[in-house]
Amino acid sequence: MGRILDAITSPADIKVLTDEELSILAHEIREQIVATTSKTGGHVASSLGAVEIILAVHSLIDSPKDRFVFDVGHQAYAHKLITGRSAEFDTLRQAGGISGFPRPDESPHDVHYSGHASDSISIALGLAKARELRRSDEKVVALIGDASLSGGMAFEALNTIGQLQIPMVIILNDNEMSISRNVGALVRHLGAIRSSASYRQARDQSQERLEGSGEGSGALGRAFVNFGRSAKDSIKQFFVPDTMLFEQLGILCTPPIDGHNITAMRNILRTALDADGPVLVHVVTKKGAGYEPAEADPERFHGLGSYDIATGTSARKLSGPQNFTEVFGKSLVREARADEHIVAITAAMPSGTGLKEFAREFPDRFIDVGIAEENAVGMAAGLALSGLKPVVAIYSTFLQRAIDQIATDCALPNCNVVFAIDRAGVVGEDGPTHHGIFDITYCRMIPGMRMLAPSDEAELASALHTALRLGGPVAVRYPRGAGVGVAVPEDPQVFAEGKSRTVREGSDVAILAFGDRVAAALQAAEQLAEEGVDARVVDMRWVKPLDEDAIVAAAGTKLVVTVENGIVSGGAGEGVLHVLTKRGLQVPVRILGVDDQVVPHGKPATLLADLGLDGNGIAAAIRDAL
Amino acid sequence: MGRILDAITSPADIKVLTDEELSILAHEIREQIVATTSKTGGHVASSLGAVEIILAVHSLIDSPKDRFVFDVGHQAYAHKLITGRSAEFDTLRQAGGISGFPRPDESPHDVHYSGHASDSISIALGLAKARELRRSDEKVVALIGDASLSGGMAFEALNTIGQLQIPMVIILNDNEMSISRNVGALVRHLGAIRSSASYRQARDQSQERLEGSGEGSGALGRAFVNFGRSAKDSIKQFFVPDTMLFEQLGILCTPPIDGHNITAMRNILRTALDADGPVLVHVVTKKGAGYEPAEADPERFHGLGSYDIATGTSARKLSGPQNFTEVFGKSLVREARADEHIVAITAAMPSGTGLKEFAREFPDRFIDVGIAEENAVGMAAGLALSGLKPVVAIYSTFLQRAIDQIATDCALPNCNVVFAIDRAGVVGEDGPTHHGIFDITYCRMIPGMRMLAPSDEAELASALHTALRLGGPVAVRYPRGAGVGVAVPEDPQVFAEGKSRTVREGSDVAILAFGDRVAAALQAAEQLAEEGVDARVVDMRWVKPLDEDAIVAAAGTKLVVTVENGIVSGGAGEGVLHVLTKRGLQVPVRILGVDDQVVPHGKPATLLADLGLDGNGIAAAIRDAL
Repeated sequence: MGRILDAITSPADIKVLTDEELSILAHEIREQIVATTSKTGGHVASSLGAVEIILAVHSLIDSPKDRFVFDVGHQAYAHKLITGRSAEFDTLRQAGGISGFPRPDESPHDVHYSGHASDSISIALGLAKARELRRSDEKVVALIGDASLSGGMAFEALNTIGQLQIPMVIILNDNEMSISRNVGALVRHLGAIRSSASYRQARDQSQERLEGSGEGSGALGRAFVNFGRSAKDSIKQFFVPDTMLFEQLGILCTPPIDGHNITAMRNILRTALDADGPVLVHVVTKKGAGYEPAEADPERFHGLGSYDIATGTSARKLSGPQNFTEVFGKSLVREARADEHIVAITAAMPSGTGLKEFAREFPDRFIDVGIAEENAVGMAAGLALSGLKPVVAIYSTFLQRAIDQIATDCALPNCNVVFAIDRAGVVGEDGPTHHGIFDITYCRMIPGMRMLAPSDEAELASALHTALRLGGPVAVRYPRGAGVGVAVPEDPQVFAEGKSRTVREGSDVAILAFGDRVAAALQAAEQLAEEGVDARVVDMRWVKPLDEDAIVAAAGTKLVVTVENGIVSGGAGEGVLHVLTKRGLQVPVRILGVDDQVVPHGKPATLLADLGLDGNGIAAAIRDAL
Repeated sequence: MGRILDAITSPADIKVLTDEELSILAHEIREQIVATTSKTGGHVASSLGAVEIILAVHSLIDSPKDRFVFDVGHQAYAHKLITGRSAEFDTLRQAGGISGFPRPDESPHDVHYSGHASDSISIALGLAKARELRRSDEKVVALIGDASLSGGMAFEALNTIGQLQIPMVIILNDNEMSISRNVGALVRHLGAIRSSASYRQARDQSQERLEGSGEGSGALGRAFVNFGRSAKDSIKQFFVPDTMLFEQLGILCTPPIDGHNITAMRNILRTALDADGPVLVHVVTKKGAGYEPAEADPERFHGLGSYDIATGTSARKLSGPQNFTEVFGKSLVREARADEHIVAITAAMPSGTGLKEFAREFPDRFIDVGIAEENAVGMAAGLALSGLKPVVAIYSTFLQRAIDQIATDCALPNCNVVFAIDRAGVVGEDGPTHHGIFDITYCRMIPGMRMLAPSDEAELASALHTALRLGGPVAVRYPRGAGVGVAVPEDPQVFAEGKSRTVREGSDVAILAFGDRVAAALQAAEQLAEEGVDARVVDMRWVKPLDEDAIVAAAGTKLVVTVENGIVSGGAGEGVLHVLTKRGLQVPVRILGVDDQVVPHGKPATLLADLGLDGNGIAAAIRDAL
C-alpha cells in the first residue's frame, strides 16, 4: 500500500484527510524525516516534535494565500514534505538541494528566511497589518518555540500586537526544552501553567492512548511511537483568561493543549483562526516525538550529522583534529582555573559553543541567558564594570543581534569583555542565515575593539590567552569544524598586539591571510612554488589592529593578496588597502573574500572552493594577477 | 540664604537631610535644571520628572560603591547635580563641558554610557551577578522609564533576573508618556494598574498637597510647582502579589507609588533594597514635574534648545533652511499621496523623525512600535512580503539595534523596505552614544543593500523618490539639522542607480564627497582655487553601489580624496579604494572621515572641524598631500 505522503503534492491535498488519516500521515512523515536525516543530518528533534502542529495548521489554512510563518525553522521539515518538496527531500541541506530552513526562494509556502530566532511574530505582525491595509482576508499564523520567546524581538512584537489587536494566531510550541536546558523565568512560568490541573488531565488521556498503541515491529519499528491516532477528545473550554503572562498584554491565550493530538489542535485552531483579535495557542509537544532515540536525547538530536536509525548512534567521528569549539572550551577551562575573574556567558548554546565542561567545573561562573544575545552582551558589560572578565561565546551570525551592545555598552566604556565568535565564516549546510561573514566588518568599525583571527588550534589557545590579558573589548573569531591537527600547547603565548607571524617566506608575492585561510594560503603557495612563483604567507593573527609593518613589507613584493573567510566590504582586506594608502605605497592588490554576495548552503569546503577561497582559488587569483 | 544644593558635593551629603530638606533640595534642583537648560537646551521634561526618585535613591545608597544605573540617561540631571557636578552644570552639553548623559569617564557615580534605551536592567544584572561572584555587598539599582521597557533587551534581562532571583532593585519610572505618545500593550497594562483603587487614593492625597501649596511669586515663581513637601504618608502594604506582568516572571512588584513623594519612596525603597530577591518598584511621575510649561507640553520639553524660563517658549527659529528631517517628512507625505502602498514606521520618534504630518494624514498607514527597533524592522519585512512599501525612519545610532534584522529579515528576501536613516553622522551635543557614524559600514556589508547619501534638501527628496522605486532594501542617510538652503523640487528625480553628479569640474584633485560633506568639499575647492589648485568635487550620491566611472575618472587626477561623515573602517572611502584596486589604478588617495575614534559631544560644526571634515580640514588635507 502506498504512502499517503506520496499523494501529497501541496497542502491543499491534506485538507481532505480525516484526523485518522492525518495521524497516519504524521507517522509517515516521521519515518521520512528519520530516513533522510539519518543520511544527511539535520535538525531532527524539533522537526519530529512539530509534525502534528504543522499538519493541523495546513489542514485549516490555504497556503500560500494564507501565511504560515516559522521561527528559526528547525521544526519545518514536515512543512517542506507537504508543500511539494517530498520527492527532493533526500537532498536536504546538500549543495543544490533543499535548504534546512524555510526560504522564500525555494517555495511560495516559505514566507521568510527563517534561521534567526524570535523574528516570526514580528514578521507575522507585518503580514497581518498588511492584510488590514490591503483589505484582504488571508489568515496569518506564526509558530514559535518556547526558547525563541526569550528573545527580545518576540516580546517587542507581542507588545505591539497586544496594542493593535490585529487578528492573528501565534502557536507557542512549548517543548519544555530549547536547544539545551531551557532558561529564563518565562519558561518557568510556562512550566507552572503546564503543571496546572487541566493540562495534567489532557496529558493523562494522551498517555493512555499512547500506551494502547502497539504498532511496529523490529528495531526500526520499535524506534517509532505513534501519536494521537485515536484522539477524539473535544476540548470544550478553549480559552481561560488571565492564566498566562501574555493575557496581560491583551493577547488571548489558550490553556496548554497536547501538540500531538491532531483532533484537539484542529478544534482549537479552528476557533483561533476565526477570532477577531490575536490569539496565542499554547501547544505542548515533545522534542523528538515518535522516534525513541531522539526522545531520549533531544539535545544531541537538535542538530546532528548522519546516524544509525535503529539505535540513533551517530557515525563514529573519525579520529582527526579537534574542532575549534572544543579547543576553545578546553582552553577557557584552563584559563578559568588560573583566573577566578573569568565568567562565561552563552545564549542558549552551552553545548554548541563548547562551554559544557566550563559549566560543570564552574557552575557559578557560567551564565546561560537563553536566546537573548542583547542581554548576554549587556550583562557582560555589567560584569566587566565590576571587575570581572566575561567571555561571551556566541556564533558569529547570532552575535549580529547585539552589535549595538558591543559598541555602546562594551566598547565605549572600554569594558574587559572577550567575544568568542564561533562559526565565523562560511558554516556550510545551514546556509545563508547562518554563515558568519559579517563579524570582521562589524568589529572593525567599532573604535576601541581589537580582533584576533587564530589560524589553528594552538593559535586559538594563545589568542584566547592574549585576549584575556589585553584589557578592553576583544573579539576572537574562529571557524566551524575541525582544526588543522596542530597540538594545543600547555602554555599558550601572549601575542604581541598587532603583530603577525610569517609562516612561509617568499619574495614574489605576499599572501596576507586571516584565520582559517592561512592553511589555504599555504596550499596555494605550494602550488605556485612548483610554477616558480615564490609566495610569502603571513598569518596576520590580528584583524584589528593590523600589522602595518607586515603590510609595508608585503608591498615590497610584486603582488599583495589578502584572503579572509568573510565579507569583503569593510573586511580585513579593505583595512590592508587603507594602510597601504596611508603609507603612500602603490602595489597591485587582490582582495579575496565573500564579495557582496549571498552564500548558499552546502559543504563548507565546496562553498569555499566556489568562492575562490581555497588553495586552488587563491593560487588561481595570483596567477591571474601576475 | 544659601541653597542646600550648593552644600552638596557628593551624594553622601544628602544622606543627612530630612525629608523636608530633600523636598527643598528637589525644588532647588528643578530651578537649576530649568535655569541651565533654558540656555543650553537639553532633556528637560524627563529630568524634572525624576528629581525625587534620584534623591530618594541617593539618600539610601552609598554611591559609587553602590551602583545606580540609568536607562537612556535623559533623566539624570539631578544625579549630575548632586554628584559633584553642580558647579560646572552650566557647561551641560557644551564642548569640553559635562555630558547630557551619564558617562563613566566623567564621574565614578556614572556607571555606564547611558544613551541607548533598555540596557539598564541588563547592565544592572551584570553588576548584581558580579557582586555574588565577588561576595561583596553593594546595592544595585536600575532606573528605567516605561517607554524603555518596550525594548526587547529589557525583557531579556527581566527574564534572566526572574530566573536567577538575584537581589536588585528596578525602579520603573512610569511617566505615562514616552518621548511621544506611548505605545504598546505593556503601557496599557501599566495604565490599568495605575487606575486601580489603591493608586487612585495615593494620587488624590498627593493632589491635595499640591493644591495646598502656594509657593513662589511672579512669572518665574508661578512656573514652578512644589512636590511632596508635606508628604508624610506611610504606605503600609508595599507589595501586592500578582498584580503585574512582571510578577509572573518571578519579580516582586510594588503597587504604583507617587514618584514625587520622597517620604513614600524612601520607605518603599528601604524595604526593596533589603529584599533577598529582585524587586520592581513601580513609581508614577509626571514628565516636566514642577515646571508648568514642561508639564503642559512634555513632548516639546523632551529635548529642546534654549527657551524662555517664564513662558517656556523656545527661541524663535531663525528663518533659514529647512532641516533634513522636515524635508524627509514632507517628501514622504507627497510620495504617500501618490502611492497607497507606502507605510511609515517609527520607533517611538514620530516627531523626531518628521512623521507627524504623515501620521495625521495617513493614520492607518502609520505605525509606532515604541522603542523596539528590532520589531520595527521585522514588521517592515512582513509588510513588504505582502506587497507594501514600508519606510522605516530611525536615527542612525538607534538603527544599530536592528542590523541583524536588516540583513536577515529584509535583505536576504530582497524586501522592498526603505530605511530613512536620520541623524546620520556626527550629531553634536548628545555625544558618543548618539553619533550616527556606523550606518555606512553596516549597510555596505549587507549583500543586496543599496544606500543613498543626499547632499542637500533637493537631493533628499529625489533620493527618497528613487529609493521607493528601486525595489529591494534601500537606505537613505541624512544628517541632523538644517539643509543648505536649496529648494525642494515639486517633481523629484529618479536617480540612475550608482551614478554620481559632478558639482564642480577640476583636473588637479578629485574630491569624492558623500552626503553633507559635499558642501564642505565645495568650500575646500574654493579655497584651493585661490591657491591655483583646480579641484573637482563629485557628489557621489550613492554609497552603494559606488559610481565606478567617477572613481576611474578621479584616478586621472593627481590626488583622490574621499570625505564622509562617518567611521572610516568599512566606510565609503574604503569602498573607493577597493574599486581603484580592482581596476588596477594607482593614484594617491586620502580617506577623510571619523578615523577609529570616539567623537565627543559639542557643536556639530566644531566637532566636524576638529575631525578635519569641514572645508578647512579638507583643504588642509589636500595641501598636505599634494
